[in-house]
Amino acid sequence: MVTKEECFKQLREVIDAVLSTVDDNGNPQSRIIDIMHIEDDRIYFLTGRGKHVYSEIMNHPKVSYLSLKDNKSIRISGEAHKLDDQKYWIDLIFENNPFMNNVYPGNARYILEPFCIEDYEMEFFDLTQKPIFRQSFKFGDAEITVKGFEITDDCIACGTCQASCPQQIPVFVEDKFEIPQEHCLHCGLCYENCPNDAIVKRE
Amino acid sequence: MVTKEECFKQLREVIDAVLSTVDDNGNPQSRIIDIMHIEDDRIYFLTGRGKHVYSEIMNHPKVSYLSLKDNKSIRISGEAHKLDDQKYWIDLIFENNPFMNNVYPGNARYILEPFCIEDYEMEFFDLTQKPIFRQSFKFGDAEITVKGFEITDDCIACGTCQASCPQQIPVFVEDKFEIPQEHCLHCGLCYENCPNDAIVKRE
Repeated sequence: MVTKEECFKQLREVIDAVLSTVDDNGNPQSRIIDIMHIEDDRIYFLTGRGKHVYSEIMNHPKVSYLSLKDNKSIRISGEAHKLDDQKYWIDLIFENNPFMNNVYPGNARYILEPFCIEDYEMEFFDLTQKPIFRQSFKFGDAEITVKGFEITDDCIACGTCQASCPQQIPVFVEDKFEIPQEHCLHCGLCYENCPNDAIVKRE
Repeated sequence: MVTKEECFKQLREVIDAVLSTVDDNGNPQSRIIDIMHIEDDRIYFLTGRGKHVYSEIMNHPKVSYLSLKDNKSIRISGEAHKLDDQKYWIDLIFENNPFMNNVYPGNARYILEPFCIEDYEMEFFDLTQKPIFRQSFKFGDAEITVKGFEITDDCIACGTCQASCPQQIPVFVEDKFEIPQEHCLHCGLCYENCPNDAIVKRE
């Protein structure tokens, strides 16, 4: 188990995270954009009005944010929106992140615009645990993406899924095998090897 | 100046990088996907056939890869393609990255598929230099994205661009100001402040 507070702590400690956007050609773009502030479960960042990433978000607000520390990743998927009260947020963020004055000294800070991600899914993924561990949180109007695989009632309890799994994750419960979703790599080996086609994609 | 070899060295030393893709809804997705191998300027990575990222790349091969170390980022924008000779590449990569056996022991490795990025733009961005420094490389059929701003012949040499720039980057050359592109943040302050509208977006 991990708490949302622990995830927020990593996001702010690492600060540097990768923000992924979609450009006008529908292709992925990514940059380091610092996570500047977190308040009431909302994620705040800044970017300059002249940058490609600024117009990309204005044209297509869906973003994906990824923070990594010690093989633990936190992924935020949601919609970013520009905040109205530019001066308030920029001043607050510069006060709490004084290193920003090295890049944007004095009034240069106001070329930046503050953005907020309010409705999002946050997924914690820990590759250091054995078996791996993942957990999702939702905030605001976001939905949690259903991923991975599940075992249907067609299961004949042969155990091939458990044997073929890189981490032997499937467990026998009552009369059939089940996949503990929090430990699944989503690799697909059980799905490809089930002799009774009893494993389906969760999507 | 930075060399492509220095960039490749960081990519392989850090290994962990963020791969951004576009999903079937046209939205950005991102995950940590290790950079497993670099050979003849080609970037190699793996992913499991059951994962969302696998089908995303198969459906939309344009990807963006980002590696960060000590405030120096390397960004790769290009097209990923699945390699035919799966066993050859998987075995080679597992030999050179033995930690992979902890996650995919034995024959489990063959649920993975090898991908290669051959035609791409690589951008190095160093926030530790003053002023910041960026440099782009192209490989294969990729084109270098034109970004940022330039000063046209409408320049009246007033110096407002240099004074307003957070890093005072624009320089006077012969009879007008110019923007040394390798040091530009692309923030847009000069563009917004030029009194003669002599600064245009390079796109």
